[in-house]
Parts: sequence; C-alpha cells; structure tokens
Amino acid sequence: MYLPSWLSQLYRGLSRPIRRTTQPIWGSLSRSLVLSSQRRNPEFSSFVVRTNTCGELRSSHLGQEVTLCGWIQYRRQNTFLVLRDFHGLVQVIIPQDESAASVRKILCEAPMESVVQVSGTVISRPAGQENPKMPTGEIEIKVKTAELLNACKKLPFEIKDFMKKTEALRLQYRYLDLRSFQMQYNLRLRSQMVMKMRDYLCNLHGFVDIETPTLFKRTPGGAKEFLVPSREPGKFYSLPQSPQQFKQLLMVGGLDRYFQVARCYRDEGSRPDRQPEFTQIDIEMSFVDQTGIQSLIEGLLQYSWPNDKDPVVVPFPSMTFAEALATYGTDKPDTRFGMKKYLKRKDIESIRKFSADHFDQEILPVFLNTNRNWNSPVANFIMESKRPELIRLMETQEEDVVLLTAGEHNKACSLLGKLRLECADLLETRGVVLRDPTLFSFLWVVDFPLFLPKEENPRELESAHHPFTAPHPSDIHLLYTEPKKVRSQHYDLVLNGNEIGGGSIRIHNAELQRYILATLLKEDVKLLSHILQALDYGAPPHGGIALGLDRLICLVTGSPSIRDVIAFPKSFRGHDLMSNTPDSIPPEELKPYHIQVSWPTDSKAAKAH
Amino acid sequence: MYLPSWLSQLYRGLSRPIRRTTQPIWGSLSRSLVLSSQRRNPEFSSFVVRTNTCGELRSSHLGQEVTLCGWIQYRRQNTFLVLRDFHGLVQVIIPQDESAASVRKILCEAPMESVVQVSGTVISRPAGQENPKMPTGEIEIKVKTAELLNACKKLPFEIKDFMKKTEALRLQYRYLDLRSFQMQYNLRLRSQMVMKMRDYLCNLHGFVDIETPTLFKRTPGGAKEFLVPSREPGKFYSLPQSPQQFKQLLMVGGLDRYFQVARCYRDEGSRPDRQPEFTQIDIEMSFVDQTGIQSLIEGLLQYSWPNDKDPVVVPFPSMTFAEALATYGTDKPDTRFGMKKYLKRKDIESIRKFSADHFDQEILPVFLNTNRNWNSPVANFIMESKRPELIRLMETQEEDVVLLTAGEHNKACSLLGKLRLECADLLETRGVVLRDPTLFSFLWVVDFPLFLPKEENPRELESAHHPFTAPHPSDIHLLYTEPKKVRSQHYDLVLNGNEIGGGSIRIHNAELQRYILATLLKEDVKLLSHILQALDYGAPPHGGIALGLDRLICLVTGSPSIRDVIAFPKSFRGHDLMSNTPDSIPPEELKPYHIQVSWPTDSKAAKAH
Repeated sequence: MYLPSWLSQLYRGLSRPIRRTTQPIWGSLSRSLVLSSQRRNPEFSSFVVRTNTCGELRSSHLGQEVTLCGWIQYRRQNTFLVLRDFHGLVQVIIPQDESAASVRKILCEAPMESVVQVSGTVISRPAGQENPKMPTGEIEIKVKTAELLNACKKLPFEIKDFMKKTEALRLQYRYLDLRSFQMQYNLRLRSQMVMKMRDYLCNLHGFVDIETPTLFKRTPGGAKEFLVPSREPGKFYSLPQSPQQFKQLLMVGGLDRYFQVARCYRDEGSRPDRQPEFTQIDIEMSFVDQTGIQSLIEGLLQYSWPNDKDPVVVPFPSMTFAEALATYGTDKPDTRFGMKKYLKRKDIESIRKFSADHFDQEILPVFLNTNRNWNSPVANFIMESKRPELIRLMETQEEDVVLLTAGEHNKACSLLGKLRLECADLLETRGVVLRDPTLFSFLWVVDFPLFLPKEENPRELESAHHPFTAPHPSDIHLLYTEPKKVRSQHYDLVLNGNEIGGGSIRIHNAELQRYILATLLKEDVKLLSHILQALDYGAPPHGGIALGLDRLICLVTGSPSIRDVIAFPKSFRGHDLMSNTPDSIPPEELKPYHIQVSWPTDSKAAKAH
Repeated sequence: MYLPSWLSQLYRGLSRPIRRTTQPIWGSLSRSLVLSSQRRNPEFSSFVVRTNTCGELRSSHLGQEVTLCGWIQYRRQNTFLVLRDFHGLVQVIIPQDESAASVRKILCEAPMESVVQVSGTVISRPAGQENPKMPTGEIEIKVKTAELLNACKKLPFEIKDFMKKTEALRLQYRYLDLRSFQMQYNLRLRSQMVMKMRDYLCNLHGFVDIETPTLFKRTPGGAKEFLVPSREPGKFYSLPQSPQQFKQLLMVGGLDRYFQVARCYRDEGSRPDRQPEFTQIDIEMSFVDQTGIQSLIEGLLQYSWPNDKDPVVVPFPSMTFAEALATYGTDKPDTRFGMKKYLKRKDIESIRKFSADHFDQEILPVFLNTNRNWNSPVANFIMESKRPELIRLMETQEEDVVLLTAGEHNKACSLLGKLRLECADLLETRGVVLRDPTLFSFLWVVDFPLFLPKEENPRELESAHHPFTAPHPSDIHLLYTEPKKVRSQHYDLVLNGNEIGGGSIRIHNAELQRYILATLLKEDVKLLSHILQALDYGAPPHGGIALGLDRLICLVTGSPSIRDVIAFPKSFRGHDLMSNTPDSIPPEELKPYHIQVSWPTDSKAAKAH
C-alpha cells in the first residue's frame, strides 16, 4: 500500500535551511523544539504525544524508546500487528508474557482500523525475517505499554478493497477514503506544490497575496454565477467565477504584483469532471507584456514541480490558435504524440462509424501503397496530377493512412482533431504507448481571435474570452473596420491536451474599453462603470493569468478525475454524498432573505429529475 | 508619505538563501533571471519593462541606466517631478534642452496621478540639495526618454488628502485608496505574515494545506449562514461559518495535521467592524492536547511576527475564565494595563453616569484617605471592623479609588470590566498612556464552561462554543449529574483585550458526542449523522484552533478598523460601495433556482430600512 519513501521524496527540498537566529518554542515536548539548521524535512511529531511516525523508523533508530500512534492495519495470529499512520507502516510485536496481559488484551482485541498508542523499543527483526519491500522492514517494535485511543466499529467494507468500490461509496465515506495511500499522496503533493508556488511568487518575485471578495455583484452575462440572497428585499450577491475585476482594480491601486490561490464558483449544473467550486492560481502584474507573463509561469512551474517527477524544461513551445486548429484540430493539442503509424485497416471502419455517429460527417480514408497509388474511394475525385502535391503537403510517407474530410474549415479541423484522439484511444487499447503518462508536454497557444460570432445570433459579436482582453497591437486598426479579424493578446497554457491556464494582457485605456463594451459587444456599461472609471484614473498597463489548480494537480498525479485531488468533492450532480448537500430549508429560515421557493408543477419537477 | 525603508524592513528575513541547484528561467529580461544564493529581498522587477523600482535607488546606483514606471506624485515649475510606485518616491529631472522637447512636453503636461515610463541615468543631487528624509534623497534621475502610459482624469479629490475623507468615499474609490502608503503597508504586511505562518506550519511542522468546501449543508442552528439556492427545487447550499466539520473529518481521514487560510461567512446583518466574509487561520491536529496546541500557536506567532515590531515573548500567560471574569470583568482582558491610579474626583461622576445610563446600575466610589478613612457614601453600610479586611482583599493602597457595585456575580463583574475600559478611555484623553500601541499582550483564557443556559429558555442548555468541544477530563462525571458545572477544553487567545483566536480539544468518542447532542442539547442528530458515524470508525483524539486573521492584522498594524486590512471590504451594512453590491436580479435569472422574491408590504419595507 505504501510506496517506499514517497513522503520524504515529496518533501525533499521543500524546507530550506533556516538562517535566522533560532528562538526556542516553549512547550511540553522539548525534543522537537530546536530548529535544526540542517533539517530539510518537516518535523512531523512536534507538539504531540508520539515521538515518531510509524513510517520513519529505520535501523538507525535501533534501541530507541518510541511512542507511536496509528491505526491497526493488519494482525496475525495474535503475535504481531501492523500499525499505520500517514507516513507508513510499522510492525509491532504483541508481548506474550503473563505480566503483559493487559497490553496483549488491548492489542489482540481491538478491531481493525482502531486507533492505538503504543510505547516500546525499536529492535531488529530476527535474521531472515526482514522485509525489503517495506521501508521499515528491518525493524519492529517491542511493545511495553499500549492504549486503545478509539475502537473502530465494523466497517461497511474492507478498507484495502476500498478503491475498487464505486465512487459513490468512496464519496459517502470520504473520511475512510482519505486514509488510502493515493489520497494522502494527492493531497500532500497538492499542498507542497502550492507552497512552492507561493515561495516563488511571494519570496522570490515580490508578489503580494491578496484575498478578494467572493460575495460580489453579478457580472454582465454571468449566467453561471451562483446567487446569494441578502437581507435586503430583491438584492442578491453573486459568487464570482474569478477575481478578474478585483485583480485589475488592484493594479489600478498600485499593488503592482498580485497573486491569490482563489476559490471560484461556476454553476454549470451537471457536468462530469467539473466542480461547482474550484481553485485557481490567480496572478496579475503591472507593466508586463505577454512574454513576461509566459516567463513567469514557466519559472513558476519549473520551481514548484514535484521532486519525484522529471524536471520541467523551459521555455515551453508556442503555437498560434490558427496553427493549432489547422494542425491538431483543437486549441489544446496533446503534443506528446504525432499520429503517424500503427492504424489497421479494420480500425478505419470504426473511425468512420465514430465520425458518422458523433459528428454526422463522412470520413474518407486514403491508404498509400508502396507504389504511391491511392487506395481510396476518394481517389477518383482527385486529379492524378494533383496527387503528388497533396502527398507533399500532407508530408505522408509510405504505409501512412490519411483521413480526409471536407467542410467548413473550423468544423472539419475540429472533427479531425477528435478523430486523432479517437485513433490514439484505439491504438492504446492495442498496447501502443502514445501518451506516456510520465511525459509532461506544455504548450502555449497564442493569437486567439478577440471576438466570436454569438451562437444565437451570428451577426453579433461576443468576447472569445472576456471583454477586458486587449487586442493584438498589430490588429487595433481592424477594430473599427473588421472586428472579427482582430486577434487578441490572450494566451492559453496547455498540458498534455488539457487547458490548464489562460490569461491576457488587459485593456488599460478607458476609451478603448468603453468602445469594445458599448459599441462592439452592446453590453450595458452601467454595470461596469466602476471598472471604466478606474481605468480613467491612471490605470497602469497590466496583464495576468490564472492556472486551474485542480486540473493541474490531477494531471501531475495522474489521477483519473479532479475529484481525486480534492478533499471533499461534489458528485457530478453537485451533491456532497457524505452529508446530503444541498438540503431543504424550513420556510421560516428563508424569510430573512425575502425569498420563497417556486415549486415546479409536477410535470416540470419530473423533467428536473 | 513613505516611511524610510519600510518595505525592506517588512521583507527582511523572509526569503531565505536558496540551496537547490538554480535552474535558469528563460525570458526576455536576462537581468533578473539568476536566482542569487545571497538574495534576501524579493526581485521586484523581474519579467517587466522597468529595471528598478522608484523606491530602491540609492547612491550605489549612481551612473546606472534605469527604466522606471510610476505615478506622477508631484511636479514643480516644470523642472522636476516626483515619481511614485509601491516601493517609494524618486525625483526625476525634466530636461530643458531643445532636443528633448517631446520628453519635456510629456512630463510637463501629464496630469497628476498619470502613469509614465521614464529611462535615464541615476545621478547625484547637487550638493546641498540632498533630502535626508527621503530614502532616495541622495540621487535623482536625468531623463532621456519618457512615455505616457496612461493619463489620469481629474480626480474627485486630492490624493494626498484622501485619508482625511470620509470612509464611504474611500470605499467608493477603493482603487485610489489602495495607492496610499498605509494600505500598501497593511496589505503587504498581511501577505508577509501569512506567508511566514505557512512556512512555519507546512515546511517546519509538516502541516498539510487542504481546501475545504464553502458550498455545504446548513449546520443545526446555523441561523447566521448565508444560503445559496441550487438548481434543485427547494434545495439550498449554505456558506459555512468555519470548516469545523471538515477539519474534524480530515483527522478521521488520517491527515494528521491540517491547516487552511480559510474564507468563512457569517450573516450578522449590520454590525460595525464585522465583515460578511472573513478569514481565519484554521488548524487541526491529531494526538494532541491543549498544551500542544498552545505551544504550536505561540511558536507560530513568534515565527511570523513582523520584523519591524518587538519580538513576541513566549510562553503566553494563561488565566482561567473564572479568574478573568472576577479580576477583569471580561473573558478577553486587555492585560497591557492595571487600573490603579490617576482618576480624578470629577471623573467619578461621569463614570457613575455611564454606569447608570448604559447598565442601569449604581456604582459607589470609595476614596481612601491617607489616614485610611473611607470617604464614600457606602461607608455607612460597611461595618468599621470589616473595612480593614476589605482593604486587604482589594489590595488597595493610599490614594486609590475603588469602585464597588453589587448584584449577580457575572453581571457585576461584567459592569466593572466595562468601567475599567471606560476609565482607561477617560485617562487616555488626559494623556496618560495606559494602552501602549507598541505593546502586544497575549493571554490564554482557559477552562470555559462547556454549556450556558439558553437565553430564551434558561432551563435548557446550549454549547458555550460548539457542540464538538470536549469536556474537561476532571469534570466528565458531572455531565450526567450537573452539566452546568462542566468545564470544557476550550481555549481562547486574547491580544490587547481582543479575542483573536479560539479552539478546543474535540470529542472523539461517538457515544459521548451522541449523548451531548441528543440528551443534553436536544439537537436533531440526523443532521450530524455523518459526523457521528465518522467518530465510530476509528477517529483519533484531536484538537485545533482558529485565529481571526483580519483582527490579528488589524491589531498588528494598529489600524482603526478591520476594513483597513482588507483590500475590498464591505461597508458595515454589507455593501460594496464601489460596485453597488448586492444588486437586483431580473426575475428570469431567479427561475433556474426555483426561487422568487417575497416583496415586503410597504410597512415592513419601511421597517427594514
């Protein structure tokens, strides 16, 4: 269950030598109170009754009197048991002599997963009985005293089989699930990585950690924002999707360099692998350009990257949005793999079917024979004289398979992008490793369009990202003539095919901001008058970025879902299965907020469920 | 406006030497990219167009070519101007020669508080023109190029007079208020102090920073919790007042040591100097007792205390609740001062009036003459033979004034406690320094009662703090006979008369928790069944504490209000005055949440406002 020395690997290099004069911390346990100037790992047993963690004991501790606290993981024939804490496992010998009857009774009768405290001596295991697979496998504990701290009732399942259970069961008993190696590793790695990010931002580069409000005003078009009724009739707060407005106002306020590990909220109803509340590393700087933000983030990820992974190589490659779409059919390409070989003829049929089923789109495969003849139904439609040029453009080689489709550029690219991933899935079921889980391929995607046509009315424009994004300096003149062609100073950070961050240089000129909001986007500028006013009072040029922390940690730990890197996640329907949240509220508790429930009619209610 | 070297003082000792192999960070600006192993202050100009901050330039920079960005603070006769950034002020010479006409035009015409970028050389000020009050007072900048980055419109007031304006105006233009020295200092000190707390908890003592949900279930009796409607009809989330349940569940989950800088919510309507959202340093540990938590917190405050204040002395003194009430008339005594001298006879009348007006209670002053005669109307009611004993008990000396009152113990003590503070106010208006603002007097208050009689029905009990608080080990037997007499393992941390933290050892036994919830408190245990179940499955003994961060930083910075240590606070009525929050919502946006506004009738509405 416990990988060797994962914890010290995780913490290594985190705590640097302390140079300041060490001042003693007073307390009941003097052992832990001297801050060693050599120590690199945290002191896990300060301030508590144990002297050591279960997982840290080695041959170097032989002969020491220790006190341990932990859960009973395993017991064998009333002769020994295995005690577990977050740090690891240790073997404890149950005393057999008559004088230790009370200790034996405690240790033999306590149910599995009970918490006990034992004191005793670290001794060598008898020759031949060492366990090299266990970090503490050379030693065991000869117990003198034992105390049952809390008995465990019969569990609804065996703790060791727990991860195999359904996710709903894991979420219902989350406090048991958290005892697993994987959850301990994920949450500790998350804490470490964020700590190193803070160190980099705050201590190395002078960023100020500033908390911004989560009870705020609804942003224009903020349909995904949770509402919070206030005690004033008809007046509501809103839980913001990001601190966007506040971080820009902090730049106007001369704070210069802001960061926050910010809780954000988005009400998307039921969407798999999304959470109604999530966390982003939120950053904003004054007097910076796109290159500056990118260098900052490259350094940040390099500095905070876990010690048990391969180091991050910087700078990250960069690609324009247009290039990403044309080459990979997506704005978040997984650049760990090309897509050049391995497909079998019978796979083609399943890909054609996938394409027809999911996208209502025909796909034509082209098989190039060794003699460069086209083996494809499409061959008849392409002039023989054009074929060599096509082969050159597609950089095809012998034995390649080419998938061709026709249609509107963005749609056709997007389809082919999805087919590329579908092919990767197909090939990986054959055992071809295309997407190496130990490989982390970062990519900047830049030069996004500033506006997109509105879905419901394509003649109107909406912001591709948000209305504060600055236009690309080369395209500013197009704002007044062909706004659809304007590129933005937005940038996305992509990791292994996932968007893990995005940001932009912002508009700092009030007139430009007003023109974009009022004339191009047709927004009600009154709702943002505080922002426009702030830009008028000496707003510095500024830009920033936000990294999606949950997704990033999910990728770093190789977890199947972001729920595995969050201590208490909601189910995909937004429920806390442990406590039955959300829940009903008595009508009298709604009164102070001047709201009442509009109960749907039966038919509507049925629809809602 | 800028105190000398406040920033370097603040950051000193924060960033420790980096021992890990330094890996270069790639970017456009190579100057800032080498992580020096000697550097103690953060690099404030990495990744941006400036080479230096305005405030950092000294004689040691003479001859250097620099690029600065900042706000125009002051301009004199078109000959020089003072440029400001978060770091400080610097003097910039406006070139007078004809060839620099465009630079001169920019620098002479830009309105005050405009943002400019200037490049030039650091030169000595002419002899006799140095300004020893200004950290950069030995140098000035000979400008070669200048760029107006953003012009400032006419401000609604002079920025330098801003702090004298009403607080409502400061909150409306918060982004301007943030440019003040005081707000910059407060927010940066807050960031630094929290960073050092994290370093202590995470890097030195192995705590895990874990984020817990803010969309949760309403706690029993959680009348002060904001509601968040969900998309399921009649189902609501609640914004919790603290992560109490989650942190205990993390201990059951074996996380061992948790902390979080946690956003909490409390809807108290209009209360001065409270915020609807606030921040606490939230901590929980397994296998710990009261002494352990206290030592941890003493070490935490000592370690994170700002370098520009006197160091914190540990351990902190401790006092029982009963003692604090009897001696100081409050559970949060300001121990910076006794109350033994200085009162004048005419003060007594105003104190008697204060007592009568505010507490409907008679106060009798006793003046002891040098001959120990009692000069008091109460003298007649106390037997002459008893007077020496009273004098001994009260430890009075000649010239002392004693205030006597009679009544129920708690009420009488509380009145005298308030009079003590009233006397302090009175004396301080005379110039007697009783409460030294540079003195920080920490105090633990312990042994609180576990239960209090309910206000609305004194025959029933309610938790003095919360229902998870463990009883004092010596008093457990009283739970079943005289629960009102049971003391708890709750502890408060008091600083200069303010409660800045509180915590307890928790109940880890499910049976005891069930008995207290169901039998003594008569709560509906179904709402907490997940907690009771968790305790049954091997919950370790555990305890914790929460420090109120806003209040702590307010005291450390000597600010008049917690609003001065929060970037974007709400007004005392819970409004954001900058953006007009909370605000109305169109009825169609309420529909997905199945709520509608219950508009009060006119008379009720009038009452509400």
